[in-house]
Amino acid sequence: MDMAERADKDLAFMLRYENVAWYDGEVVRILDRRVYPAKTEYVTCRSYVEVADAIRDMVTQSGGPYLAAAMGMALAAKEGAGKKGEAFIAHMEKAASVLSHARPTTMQRMIDITSGCLEAAAAAIVQGEKVDEAVFTEALHTVNARYAKTALAAKYLVDKIPDDGTVMTQCFAETIIGMMLKECRARGKTISVICAETRPYFQGARLTASVVKDMGFDVTVITDNMAAYTLKARKVDVFTSAADVICMDGHIVNKVGTFQIALGASYWGVPYYVTGTPNPKHPTIDTVHIEERDGEEVLSAMGVRTAMAGVKGFYPAFDITPPKLCDGVVTDKGIYPPCDVARYWKKA
Amino acid sequence: MDMAERADKDLAFMLRYENVAWYDGEVVRILDRRVYPAKTEYVTCRSYVEVADAIRDMVTQSGGPYLAAAMGMALAAKEGAGKKGEAFIAHMEKAASVLSHARPTTMQRMIDITSGCLEAAAAAIVQGEKVDEAVFTEALHTVNARYAKTALAAKYLVDKIPDDGTVMTQCFAETIIGMMLKECRARGKTISVICAETRPYFQGARLTASVVKDMGFDVTVITDNMAAYTLKARKVDVFTSAADVICMDGHIVNKVGTFQIALGASYWGVPYYVTGTPNPKHPTIDTVHIEERDGEEVLSAMGVRTAMAGVKGFYPAFDITPPKLCDGVVTDKGIYPPCDVARYWKKA
Repeated sequence: MDMAERADKDLAFMLRYENVAWYDGEVVRILDRRVYPAKTEYVTCRSYVEVADAIRDMVTQSGGPYLAAAMGMALAAKEGAGKKGEAFIAHMEKAASVLSHARPTTMQRMIDITSGCLEAAAAAIVQGEKVDEAVFTEALHTVNARYAKTALAAKYLVDKIPDDGTVMTQCFAETIIGMMLKECRARGKTISVICAETRPYFQGARLTASVVKDMGFDVTVITDNMAAYTLKARKVDVFTSAADVICMDGHIVNKVGTFQIALGASYWGVPYYVTGTPNPKHPTIDTVHIEERDGEEVLSAMGVRTAMAGVKGFYPAFDITPPKLCDGVVTDKGIYPPCDVARYWKKA
Repeated sequence: MDMAERADKDLAFMLRYENVAWYDGEVVRILDRRVYPAKTEYVTCRSYVEVADAIRDMVTQSGGPYLAAAMGMALAAKEGAGKKGEAFIAHMEKAASVLSHARPTTMQRMIDITSGCLEAAAAAIVQGEKVDEAVFTEALHTVNARYAKTALAAKYLVDKIPDDGTVMTQCFAETIIGMMLKECRARGKTISVICAETRPYFQGARLTASVVKDMGFDVTVITDNMAAYTLKARKVDVFTSAADVICMDGHIVNKVGTFQIALGASYWGVPYYVTGTPNPKHPTIDTVHIEERDGEEVLSAMGVRTAMAGVKGFYPAFDITPPKLCDGVVTDKGIYPPCDVARYWKKA
């Protein structure tokens, strides 16, 4: 199994723009997005537990944890190679549980991914194949399937952006940002991107702005308090974000800050399009647990303390945008009104 | 003229909580709010031009520039002591112009302050008094007058805060924050304060949170993208801010971010009260110039670069909140609906 060769073939685009997690037959290496692009460093995970820890510690975020979890399952298969039959299955199920529960808000989607890996492992046992290779292949399959879906969604999204238009985004919407720009380039459409920096981890300033710059488009960073003013001052045409969860009732859960940009966009009449797939495991917003991380994380910036001792911090990692503040859910099958996303699953 | 003694008498409260600018007969020293509270350092200005530079460079902000400008005028009088008659007056008028134009958005109020200093200087010449001492006294007078007005406004503001209530604020609303807490303490009212950190200079995390903590109240910092979510999640009772300009048509100009918190507050039904004095020099919002600072300033945090080379920054220093998003303008004469602030100047 020549990982490097397969990487070139299947994942060249992602390796360049998304800084993936990768199982090399021994360990899982995850690009440390907490320090990128100032430093390009990888966290080396020697067990699936370390992969789960890395996800919890925000080494990777956005779509990163989905791939990291799948690669963690491949590593778990390697770790459990000495176990037989039921014991091996139990080991893999434990790994699936630990990895999918690393962060609460995206748990349902993580369960789907690790379940796919468990099925691939079971099939490999029946076929007498190497389980870690089979899980690794499943991980690549999942990623490629996501790429194909996202490329379709990007076409619908770009239809909504005028030529020479200005797009605001925040956090790191990952695959869709790269695909959106690729689609713009294919159509000869010049756009400008404005990124909210996305405190406390600066994913907008560090990751999104880097991808946009790297792909040759105009990009401007603002701090998170400037979004509502900038929507008007810079004549933004479209606000777009990815989502960690799109509920079947049309509520959108995404990186904290999305809600208030959506409020500003609604105030100024700027359309907000969210990209992603409605999640049937979340019939309503009441099934989503909004992760609250350690408040200490908001009391420093780029590693430097901002507030004096004794001051508390509050860190809700996500927020909730109600359906009425969103103009459309952009999917691989087209754009749906948020109140009618259930139709997505009824369409072939 | 024993500056230290006068400081103790007139400005003990401000020296402790506002970190003033101060003319000592030779130079003006301004506490460097860009590094406070991590470091307590003063910028020493040896000429009024250096005072204007310090204001422009954000050594001090919020109410700080008003006092710094007045102290700068005292220093200008000392600098011009060798000049006679018309030449001295021309020198002082030049200083007033340079100091009041250091930053565009608050220019009208700065002109009022430096005009007061020019009048004090003229009177001192007639009376044969030392001009720098007279201007210094005028500076203290201006500050004490502001204190008296703010103490009255604080009473009206605290009336709007329930016992055990939670107040959200952002940037450093300076005198009114200290006065509000002093008034709460006097009434035995326990409140909690939530501060938006206020990028790019973190005035909320560094200055406001320090004052609140120092005065013994509960204080929690959030990043600027969390305001709309936190208003609901933490059951905020009142959002309050100061203002750099309150126009006679009810538009509010304040540190960028105020507008989007006001939008969030309006969405959740949380009242927004702004404190300050309506400015007759600004009949409508069209007379206000919103300062845009160097975009590079948003591309770093606490001195550490966030974005890669080639990424642009956009830095509007203030934003505009329309009257309909504000529940009341809190003044020394009571609370006025934003659409009716003109009445303030009709009341004795």
